[in-house]
Amino acid sequence: MNYPNKIQKTTVKTINYSNRGMDLEGLINETNEYYVEKDIALIYKKPTPIGISEAVYTEHGRIIKNGYFKAPSTLDYNGVYKGKYIEFEAKETKSTTSFPLANFHEHQLAYIPKVIQHGGICFILIKMNQKVFLLPGSRLVDFIQNNERKSIPFSYLEENGWVVDEKISPALDYLKIVDMIYFKGETL
Amino acid sequence: MNYPNKIQKTTVKTINYSNRGMDLEGLINETNEYYVEKDIALIYKKPTPIGISEAVYTEHGRIIKNGYFKAPSTLDYNGVYKGKYIEFEAKETKSTTSFPLANFHEHQLAYIPKVIQHGGICFILIKMNQKVFLLPGSRLVDFIQNNERKSIPFSYLEENGWVVDEKISPALDYLKIVDMIYFKGETL
Repeated sequence: MNYPNKIQKTTVKTINYSNRGMDLEGLINETNEYYVEKDIALIYKKPTPIGISEAVYTEHGRIIKNGYFKAPSTLDYNGVYKGKYIEFEAKETKSTTSFPLANFHEHQLAYIPKVIQHGGICFILIKMNQKVFLLPGSRLVDFIQNNERKSIPFSYLEENGWVVDEKISPALDYLKIVDMIYFKGETL
Repeated sequence: MNYPNKIQKTTVKTINYSNRGMDLEGLINETNEYYVEKDIALIYKKPTPIGISEAVYTEHGRIIKNGYFKAPSTLDYNGVYKGKYIEFEAKETKSTTSFPLANFHEHQLAYIPKVIQHGGICFILIKMNQKVFLLPGSRLVDFIQNNERKSIPFSYLEENGWVVDEKISPALDYLKIVDMIYFKGETL
């Protein structure tokens, strides 16, 4: 068994930092690869949940011949950072004035307070007006509970979110903001 | 917006606890539903990662016409329990003498020490000889690092694992063992 701690590391994975102009998901995936490579955190995008109506067995294994996408009831990314559970969702909008809550599935909005209740770190990364904001889950919950509006005004993001700077590497260092918000009392 | 904290809960989900004789995955899924319903933990099976070679758009949305299953590089279940990150894998074997490590993908074995390193709770649930054992990830890592064998003898499970009792509800209360092993010093 080639157990990785036993053998000399012979390949070094290189990350291509040159693909600028990528979408929010690309930036996050690249950042998460950086975090894994630098042993900072283990955070992954969950596979899209699918349903399979027809599958066949072939010489190459089981193949899906008819499948459909299910609506996710949890958030897109989760993992571990300094022992803590972390879960978040990433959303982009072209609107310049407000972020429509219809971007979330109903189940996702019900799920966010539960993650918080269980002590998880939960937030949304929202790209809007060329900026990426980290909005803590608690602030999203507050907004929904105290507003009849079906969209979050940009000013609410500016007042309640933190701007995540886009850099060369890592592309979107959102854990720096997580440190500020959720690990304030700890020595970093 | 029907935000769930605002509306009266009108439906109560019932869990069918009568399906005994189910496989390990069934027992775990039922237990995880119990944990979610009782607000004990949020733990889910990750969707199976798939690749899509062909997809078409229909009036019902995007449909997969050709897809294949990818080998997972992380473990099957993850979530949050008392603020901590938890991740585990479930395996069954019909062998009565030893558990073959070939049941894991190479990447999964490399991944386990990383979860531990980041402070996550990581373990394997192994069903063997009509018993379910919780084997801490650290004990699996120890075994691999100190043995040339490609399978774990049953006696190693008996000496290094904890038996998880099968009950009516929850079916397989593995968090009771997690409490004992990982939360010993805390007031529960």
